[in-house]
Amino acid sequence: MPINILFAARPERWAQYETPLTTALSDVGLDYVLKTDLLPEDVDYIVYAPNSEVQDFTPYTRLKAVMNIWAGVEAITGNPTLTVPLTRMVDAEGLTQGMVEWVTGHVLRHHLGMDAHIVNPDHLWQSVAPPLSRERPVTILGMGVLGQACAAALTSLGFPVTGWSRSPKSLPGLANEHGKDGLRRALATAQIVVLLLPDTPETENTLNADSLALLPRGAVLINPGRGPLIDDDALIAALDTGQVGHATLDVFRVEPLPQDHPFWAHPGVTVTPHIASETRPDSAARVIAQNIRRGEDGHGFLHLVDRAAGY
Amino acid sequence: MPINILFAARPERWAQYETPLTTALSDVGLDYVLKTDLLPEDVDYIVYAPNSEVQDFTPYTRLKAVMNIWAGVEAITGNPTLTVPLTRMVDAEGLTQGMVEWVTGHVLRHHLGMDAHIVNPDHLWQSVAPPLSRERPVTILGMGVLGQACAAALTSLGFPVTGWSRSPKSLPGLANEHGKDGLRRALATAQIVVLLLPDTPETENTLNADSLALLPRGAVLINPGRGPLIDDDALIAALDTGQVGHATLDVFRVEPLPQDHPFWAHPGVTVTPHIASETRPDSAARVIAQNIRRGEDGHGFLHLVDRAAGY
Repeated sequence: MPINILFAARPERWAQYETPLTTALSDVGLDYVLKTDLLPEDVDYIVYAPNSEVQDFTPYTRLKAVMNIWAGVEAITGNPTLTVPLTRMVDAEGLTQGMVEWVTGHVLRHHLGMDAHIVNPDHLWQSVAPPLSRERPVTILGMGVLGQACAAALTSLGFPVTGWSRSPKSLPGLANEHGKDGLRRALATAQIVVLLLPDTPETENTLNADSLALLPRGAVLINPGRGPLIDDDALIAALDTGQVGHATLDVFRVEPLPQDHPFWAHPGVTVTPHIASETRPDSAARVIAQNIRRGEDGHGFLHLVDRAAGY
Repeated sequence: MPINILFAARPERWAQYETPLTTALSDVGLDYVLKTDLLPEDVDYIVYAPNSEVQDFTPYTRLKAVMNIWAGVEAITGNPTLTVPLTRMVDAEGLTQGMVEWVTGHVLRHHLGMDAHIVNPDHLWQSVAPPLSRERPVTILGMGVLGQACAAALTSLGFPVTGWSRSPKSLPGLANEHGKDGLRRALATAQIVVLLLPDTPETENTLNADSLALLPRGAVLINPGRGPLIDDDALIAALDTGQVGHATLDVFRVEPLPQDHPFWAHPGVTVTPHIASETRPDSAARVIAQNIRRGEDGHGFLHLVDRAAGY
């Protein structure tokens, strides 16, 4: 009997995913039905985006798992009707690789002081080479899949990287920090800080007036993680005093960033329009198909969300 | 009897190099005298910059080798009075690492389309993610030490790299091209071209009107190599038609770049002030000391210049 897979996301996603998912599910040898409309009581798996119409999972009585096509899960972890396993998207080929490229690019941009050459109306020729990467400590807050991948790329370029996580981790090649004391140390040494924490009640305003004051003066912030990690007003204040040298932000509390938000006009802020990391349908479809295959074979699901922790 | 080493470069270089060289020469166990003034007939080695006062090597009758502290040797290879071995600076720690950082940073800058976010006066939010690096072919012209190091960094970030050199090379992980036909193929597929060729009569104007026309429309040039590799007028013309999308240039035929040069004001050109790669005295001193040690031990010198080829 075929397994029944419901695709529950906005119609434009179906247009992107139908062909890649069909290919990927067939490639892993599943006997399946994939549709955007199925009777709830017939559904075995839901391929899901949190902004779909499906918000009450109660009628899905034989549901085995929900496979999120987003990396972010904060819009679904609090849903009390969802009691089966939930997996997040960990798309190494697309989402992770895109993040590594964006983070590495913006770290190098700030490290090399590129902006002074990209915008140089007075045609200044100031031939002072930047320090080498080994003299530029970078701290990454959040050592999940994305944080680890960025740390690996930056260490291979020679940057000394400190990786901070809520719980202790021992990742080779990095200075590992965790907990509240570790956060203070990780910030106190950082010339560049990259935010890759999940959005949870505990991580909201991780960078606020107190923690921004711990940074060396002139440090640079790069946030491709989640908007609420930063207290926007505290960041503007820190930029105005020079405590923070620059902030390059890809994510915001409200997106698109409203035209009247002070980040747009602030000379110390670069806004990028939530492009650091995007799931690519081809590779994401393969990840989902392989995970459903694991479920059917009785192996555990990969990339399971810990709903108590919120990520 | 101690070996006599003459330091022949501008006084500000002596200020930078005296301590590192003294340390490095002692560390390799040499019995030596290091001075900025020695009788020519007493000198065994010259640590040299081509803009020093020493231009006639005829009086240096027992000279064993000249160790250039610059990577570029075009200002000395034509000197007929220099008949002993000449070594170039290959400072993996400083010069090569700095080049890798600058090239990787500017390749990522163009790959990610950063400039549109750094300068965005209309506050446009256009959330279109760039392609992944695997969809962005990069061609490096010049597969010496610097070209190989940049190729390794870019391939590890996922870029498909084509490496072109005058003579055939088989470097793993790259598409290897050489010779005139290979140059045409290497340019025809490149979305980003990095110039790391030496400055020789054969390489002058490698990028001229004809070769620029071979590029895919809108390709980006990055030149941290040598100014004369590019025909400046042909580049301006190609930028004006959109055949070249942007040029980021670190080296020029005249430096500092004269204020009336059209590169300064052209919106398609980014000028950086010859900062891509700079020899660092600490690591350069170690390279020189190790090479003199090799000479004294009867091993061949590393990084020998082929004066017939000009590099």
